Amino acid sequence: MRSLGKLLLEGTYTTDKEDLICYGYDASGLDNCPATVVWPINTLDVIKTVKFARENGLKIIPRGAGSGMTGGSVPGEDSIVLSFEKMNRILEIDAGNLTAIVEPGVINGHLQSELEDSGFFYPPDPASLNICTIGGNVAENAGGPRALKYGVTRDYVMQIEAVLPDGRLISTGVETSKGVVGYDLTRLLVGSEGTLAMITKIRLKILPAPEAIVTILCAFNSIELAGKTVSKIIASALLPRTMEIMDRMTLMAVNKYKNVGFPENVEAMLLVELDGNRRAIVQDAEKVSNICNSFEGKIKIAEDVASRDMLWEARRAVSPALYKISPTKINEDIVVPITRVADILVAVQRISEKFGIPIACFGHAGDGNIHVNVMVDKNNKESVAKSEKIVREIFKATLDMGGTISGEHGIGLTKAKYLDMELDAVNIELMKGVKKLFDPENILNPGKVFLS
Amino acid sequence: MRSLGKLLLEGTYTTDKEDLICYGYDASGLDNCPATVVWPINTLDVIKTVKFARENGLKIIPRGAGSGMTGGSVPGEDSIVLSFEKMNRILEIDAGNLTAIVEPGVINGHLQSELEDSGFFYPPDPASLNICTIGGNVAENAGGPRALKYGVTRDYVMQIEAVLPDGRLISTGVETSKGVVGYDLTRLLVGSEGTLAMITKIRLKILPAPEAIVTILCAFNSIELAGKTVSKIIASALLPRTMEIMDRMTLMAVNKYKNVGFPENVEAMLLVELDGNRRAIVQDAEKVSNICNSFEGKIKIAEDVASRDMLWEARRAVSPALYKISPTKINEDIVVPITRVADILVAVQRISEKFGIPIACFGHAGDGNIHVNVMVDKNNKESVAKSEKIVREIFKATLDMGGTISGEHGIGLTKAKYLDMELDAVNIELMKGVKKLFDPENILNPGKVFLS
Repeated sequence: MRSLGKLLLEGTYTTDKEDLICYGYDASGLDNCPATVVWPINTLDVIKTVKFARENGLKIIPRGAGSGMTGGSVPGEDSIVLSFEKMNRILEIDAGNLTAIVEPGVINGHLQSELEDSGFFYPPDPASLNICTIGGNVAENAGGPRALKYGVTRDYVMQIEAVLPDGRLISTGVETSKGVVGYDLTRLLVGSEGTLAMITKIRLKILPAPEAIVTILCAFNSIELAGKTVSKIIASALLPRTMEIMDRMTLMAVNKYKNVGFPENVEAMLLVELDGNRRAIVQDAEKVSNICNSFEGKIKIAEDVASRDMLWEARRAVSPALYKISPTKINEDIVVPITRVADILVAVQRISEKFGIPIACFGHAGDGNIHVNVMVDKNNKESVAKSEKIVREIFKATLDMGGTISGEHGIGLTKAKYLDMELDAVNIELMKGVKKLFDPENILNPGKVFLS
Repeated sequence: MRSLGKLLLEGTYTTDKEDLICYGYDASGLDNCPATVVWPINTLDVIKTVKFARENGLKIIPRGAGSGMTGGSVPGEDSIVLSFEKMNRILEIDAGNLTAIVEPGVINGHLQSELEDSGFFYPPDPASLNICTIGGNVAENAGGPRALKYGVTRDYVMQIEAVLPDGRLISTGVETSKGVVGYDLTRLLVGSEGTLAMITKIRLKILPAPEAIVTILCAFNSIELAGKTVSKIIASALLPRTMEIMDRMTLMAVNKYKNVGFPENVEAMLLVELDGNRRAIVQDAEKVSNICNSFEGKIKIAEDVASRDMLWEARRAVSPALYKISPTKINEDIVVPITRVADILVAVQRISEKFGIPIACFGHAGDGNIHVNVMVDKNNKESVAKSEKIVREIFKATLDMGGTISGEHGIGLTKAKYLDMELDAVNIELMKGVKKLFDPENILNPGKVFLS
């Protein structure tokens, strides 16, 4: 690795085994040791790393915080992990034009708190916001609870600076809210899971912070009634900023992990949050409460910031809480049309009963985006054998209802084998053509998204 | 053309000169007669036409209503115009999931009125909404006044069914609001100006109609003050659904064309519209009024639906009104960052004075999207000679301010020669690669977007 030392500053790369193993895994549970880790401090470092990789026949695996759920940043053989944690500066917050420019390693929650101080916010808020990076969010087209009202990362990326797999720099998109000059390469890069280019700078759209927020918690005696409530709220022309669902198993896991006092003798809970004009949301909150009541829901309103924060801390603890009781669980993130939320929750319950494996459901019900947690024990052979069958059945039910097999986690490694359940051969052929156009030698994050 | 008769029903194609000339032009003023016009009645007709075109060495030019401003649907030599006016059915309005499925020939205004009846709306509202089609809107990524609050066509297209230039059918995107399975081919097709695929079906996101609307008209004694008012409103965390600007020349032209009584002794006028909760927008309207007053603007509020409709009728008459006084005017649609709106208006005024050619400005000021109308007389050689220089100076000023040379009209034929002012060689190379991937034989709308 002497030649990498000629290109990069000391302390910005490593080949020490102890370091390497820290960059071999993500939240999918997969892991594989890279040959090298590079921590670029600027775009030029990225270009140099590409040059080095090409000369030495190495692959490049871009990495944010490694919080991805599908193995998108897990390296293959002979790989350099390009970890953006040192490119973590917020370069500009332009209040007048409602934009911010960030480096890819900026942590989502860090941007959120910087913006909050100036009266703004950046809508995408994945549950992992305290660790995940904006670069990773862009690569995965991350969502989060607020996506219901505000949309996903794609809707907030205006410009991308990126290094192509041949080492050339590209800058896509426009500084302005509108722009139709040429094809939309910006949105082609968003959600491309680090397979097309290495993102080095991002201009984001930001929004003025809402005047007020109301948070409503509602307990239900059946998950189906909770699902029906979700559809009814949307059909009533109400647009909460979030509408999160948690089933019984999820509630119990969270209480065990972090004692927040969620009621346990209920089958499901909805967490509904409205934002906007103070008077308007009071009216809307009343409408939401009436709908909840009409489906036998029991309402509690979080009156102050402290109790709201506690609820969200609990909501964000759901994923770790479930990992604690089932360390090798499989976490999928299906989406169905809003009117099918109740149906998919019932279908998943049936699949759980059929296979005798617990499945915990939670997630962004207002989007139809359910995180389905198959509580398999990977040390139990029988359980593992069932898991792929269970996942296929869940995906089939989802697709049959007009849904998609991933709302925000992407395909990565773990879902590549299911890709053709959703996409036909023409789509896959064109997508592979796009990959080949950007990365003809397949040196950037190979093996992700597509099986071969 | 006997073989086309074997493929298609009588009345769905023509080679009569009288018919052909009607399909040779668009709103750019360019025209060129096609060899054939086909009016497909379904997707299969499109596939058959592609097959026929390929066998006979013909090009295919998809066409909506021909209301495009940049020659995007103007045919070249040996072309079949594929005119979607008979594929004009609204196939589904799904209120529960907030989506609608339409054929490409559905007229935007027709969809708007169908939705209005059920309490919904489709935000993109180009000024030509009474004639332009959704297919054309998708091909151009159309905007309109409401884009300020609600975004552009791209933000509302969920799924596209399209025929590829090799005759294969593709269906992109998902039925759900979220979905991250594979690359975003949907948004690659949006704004691709009919150069990548022939769109045959579109699933759109729709929204519940707002509870109330307030329309404010404000007159200014300088265009710069009007521009500053726009920036100040945005910086004040207000988000009107529209903020339209009209300069003195525009106001005079509209009054002459359609007597609506716009004040003529003013330099500029803003048309600001707020929508949402009734109480909230009354508060916001007061804030907007105060800002207008602070820049010496004189306010008038449209109290009822009739006076609001009259204002919008007048606003939508701007483009025809300007054509009436300058039939061969050049219409550009630059965009600058919101904080530069006043600067670009002043810069355009200076360019107008420098060349001694009147330039009328109007458009979506809240987006920074200004329609710049260079009032050249194409029968006057001197005037024509100046016009390209003027356009280049306007584009240069725009790009220097961080803007883009097209916010909603696209590149088509008329702007292809300016493409490299905005996009560098790497961008253009990748975009041409995308074109080649979808259309390796360059049979679909050739010569558009790229010069060669």
